[in-house]
Amino acid sequence: MFSNESLEPFFNPKGIVIVGARTTPGFGMWLPPELKNKGFGDRLRLVNPKGGEMYGMPVYKKATEVPDPVELALVVVPSRAVPGVIVDIGERGIRYVIIMSAGFAEAGSDGKALQAEILKAKNKYGLRIIGPNCIGLVNNENGFTTAETLEEATKPGNLGIIAQSGVFGNVLLDGLYQKGLYVSKAVTLGNRIDVNESEVLNYLHKDPMTDLIMMYLEGASDGRLLTQTLNSVTRDKPVLVLKSGRTDEGKADTKSHTGSMSGEDHLYESMFAQTGATRVENLEELIQFARAFATQPLPHGNRLGIVTSSGSMGDLATDAAIRSGLRVSALSETTIQKVRDGAPDWMNVKNPLDVGPSGQFLKGFTALMEDPDIDMVISIIASPFMFLKEYMKTGSSVHRWFGDLPAIHKQAGKPLLICAVSNSEFVDYFTKDAGPKVPVLTSPEMAAKAMAALWRYQNSRKKKAIATWNK
Amino acid sequence: MFSNESLEPFFNPKGIVIVGARTTPGFGMWLPPELKNKGFGDRLRLVNPKGGEMYGMPVYKKATEVPDPVELALVVVPSRAVPGVIVDIGERGIRYVIIMSAGFAEAGSDGKALQAEILKAKNKYGLRIIGPNCIGLVNNENGFTTAETLEEATKPGNLGIIAQSGVFGNVLLDGLYQKGLYVSKAVTLGNRIDVNESEVLNYLHKDPMTDLIMMYLEGASDGRLLTQTLNSVTRDKPVLVLKSGRTDEGKADTKSHTGSMSGEDHLYESMFAQTGATRVENLEELIQFARAFATQPLPHGNRLGIVTSSGSMGDLATDAAIRSGLRVSALSETTIQKVRDGAPDWMNVKNPLDVGPSGQFLKGFTALMEDPDIDMVISIIASPFMFLKEYMKTGSSVHRWFGDLPAIHKQAGKPLLICAVSNSEFVDYFTKDAGPKVPVLTSPEMAAKAMAALWRYQNSRKKKAIATWNK
Repeated sequence: MFSNESLEPFFNPKGIVIVGARTTPGFGMWLPPELKNKGFGDRLRLVNPKGGEMYGMPVYKKATEVPDPVELALVVVPSRAVPGVIVDIGERGIRYVIIMSAGFAEAGSDGKALQAEILKAKNKYGLRIIGPNCIGLVNNENGFTTAETLEEATKPGNLGIIAQSGVFGNVLLDGLYQKGLYVSKAVTLGNRIDVNESEVLNYLHKDPMTDLIMMYLEGASDGRLLTQTLNSVTRDKPVLVLKSGRTDEGKADTKSHTGSMSGEDHLYESMFAQTGATRVENLEELIQFARAFATQPLPHGNRLGIVTSSGSMGDLATDAAIRSGLRVSALSETTIQKVRDGAPDWMNVKNPLDVGPSGQFLKGFTALMEDPDIDMVISIIASPFMFLKEYMKTGSSVHRWFGDLPAIHKQAGKPLLICAVSNSEFVDYFTKDAGPKVPVLTSPEMAAKAMAALWRYQNSRKKKAIATWNK
Repeated sequence: MFSNESLEPFFNPKGIVIVGARTTPGFGMWLPPELKNKGFGDRLRLVNPKGGEMYGMPVYKKATEVPDPVELALVVVPSRAVPGVIVDIGERGIRYVIIMSAGFAEAGSDGKALQAEILKAKNKYGLRIIGPNCIGLVNNENGFTTAETLEEATKPGNLGIIAQSGVFGNVLLDGLYQKGLYVSKAVTLGNRIDVNESEVLNYLHKDPMTDLIMMYLEGASDGRLLTQTLNSVTRDKPVLVLKSGRTDEGKADTKSHTGSMSGEDHLYESMFAQTGATRVENLEELIQFARAFATQPLPHGNRLGIVTSSGSMGDLATDAAIRSGLRVSALSETTIQKVRDGAPDWMNVKNPLDVGPSGQFLKGFTALMEDPDIDMVISIIASPFMFLKEYMKTGSSVHRWFGDLPAIHKQAGKPLLICAVSNSEFVDYFTKDAGPKVPVLTSPEMAAKAMAALWRYQNSRKKKAIATWNK
């Protein structure tokens, strides 16, 4: 239905025209030097009715006057000027447009009328439009970005992002790298006059850089299309969806900022469940689940092993795991033997495995990672920080207690999440120690829920594979 | 039923005997110098069968030999030695005992037998016992602590903590100060052979330093007593409860580390709802709700006002608020007028108030804080971090945009939570700016849930007051 060629010029334009370049604060001031810095200067053209020169480049008065190469137009003029600008763009033969300006369907009847005019021009000239009311996109493969992001957030990664709202997308980008998440491509859709979430999902599906997709949605642009698309994409890549507009009040409000209808929440709930998309409950889950999906293999079954230095934290994780559909099942005889060996009398060798101050943490952890009856492991490191601090002063490595996390993880090849609970320095220490492939979460319940999400996704993929086979 | 005198010697002992003082790693090594450092040296006595001298103090071979002052014994010997030690303590006329040793009812039949012996001695000598299998308590009023805590965690505050498990309590203490939470008194209960959560609740109820209480519970020691106690305590102070053992698996497990029966979760659910205790879903809620309760006045009604620089974040907060029982209700005519004044055409003046890039954030925020039709406010600060960074370089204060948070909060006298979403530097900046009285959360949904918890508590207090009046 879609080919990636259809959206490619948005991500990798042969020529870029900024309509609304200026020297006073706003996107029109930020974009020209930014794109020049990133190496797009040779294919960059500026438009402003005043003409003249800006940022060492000639400024054209209208898009119609711009010389080749032209392929993509970035529109950053006030909403009232947009319809005229779009006609110029169409006349010039530019087919791809990102309208970043706000003040359309999300802003009452005048805005709606303006949006209708754009739609007319779009149809007349056969344009492809992202927006309006968005911040465009980020392509960390080639460095092309229309969004103001931190340098650190431009390191290429395997996470694709689709955000309906511009600010939301931007704010996500700002924080993700601090959680070890790096982005392949990110697109903000705004009012979706044309390009919608399904098209971008398909693009990211075929994008070799992208291993998983994170989506913030207020409502589907086309429910049936989204169902088909999710069904297809999730055969190969997990899609995490945060959907707002769950309550009548929330629904009423989404209309007011991206002009979208959120629809009935229970319909979305079943759509996501049926298609194998992973619906998250909140922003925090979106981020933490993504950390698990971005780094961990999928589990072969739903048997969770928990090793913990705090019984209570183990219980909190157990409750959350069971309520999310996992099993905290019996350990194999071999594992029990291994852990029992050298353990003090008072220690119960079972799952969750609370090692207390027995010194058996590493032995228990390794045994769980090796246990064929355990499909995934959560390792909960909760110790009084003073204790760790004193120990570190002796120059000894905590590997003696908690293990060489990256090595054990690599060896076992099963999903592992660390939960470090306590002082942030304590958490930072283990985050560094665990390396980029083993996420360190700070909540035992969240770790369990993230594991359950991996399992549910794997399970839905298996079911699809069987259904295909039976056809 | 209880007087605070009954537990006072635990918190402020006239004399302290450490049974199990030693010079090899463990509590027995850490406690003597620590208590000396904290100024309790003059009332400290050490016991070890070897006798001699340690830490510049004489060591007595048995508790029976210890000279005055004696009032509280800290027991840190291996479990098998505990029953004998308890008899010595009783013989010496010491009535208060904290047994920190593990290896009792939580650790199988041998441990159960040992615990039964302790109980016998307790009854014979009329002892009061905290533990076994705990880390005792922290009193930040006088600096008396039996738990290894960070210096920063000993700054006196208004939060009382009751934790069934020792590690859990310790780990909480390690991290809370980083969230702006400071502790009055904390008690870890362990196997609760004697002193239980209800007694400590009553103690903290009467403790002038304590404004709110945080409790981690695996199961009630006495369900009827806990119901009565919560009912009484919550008339004056909020009690946040995190209860594990919600699933059969979790229940089975709590038995194995503090030997406690968790009981049926739905019974606890209704107990907490009826008594006005605030049940939290997970560890993160426990901490974030506590931040709201520790700093905010209670709202007069359930009408939440939301001001946000990101429409999406406003919607996420709205959904969570509505689902938690709040109203995101219409703004007063005055507020609408105030905000409309100077706002761009595209801006919808409503609740949630998405100001976008209008420059109206401060105006909107102040108007909501002053609006008599709004009982509480969440201010969501979500902006691209680059933007803030550039702005800060000019040396200007963000107060121009987001307001002088402490001043506006103080003026309005209604609950306010800030939600700062993005890079952690961005969050840290606003956390510093907001000061100690205005919590900065990082999740819009959590902010809404915390507000709802304030309202539910206030509402249950009101109902109780009416019920009392009608009697």
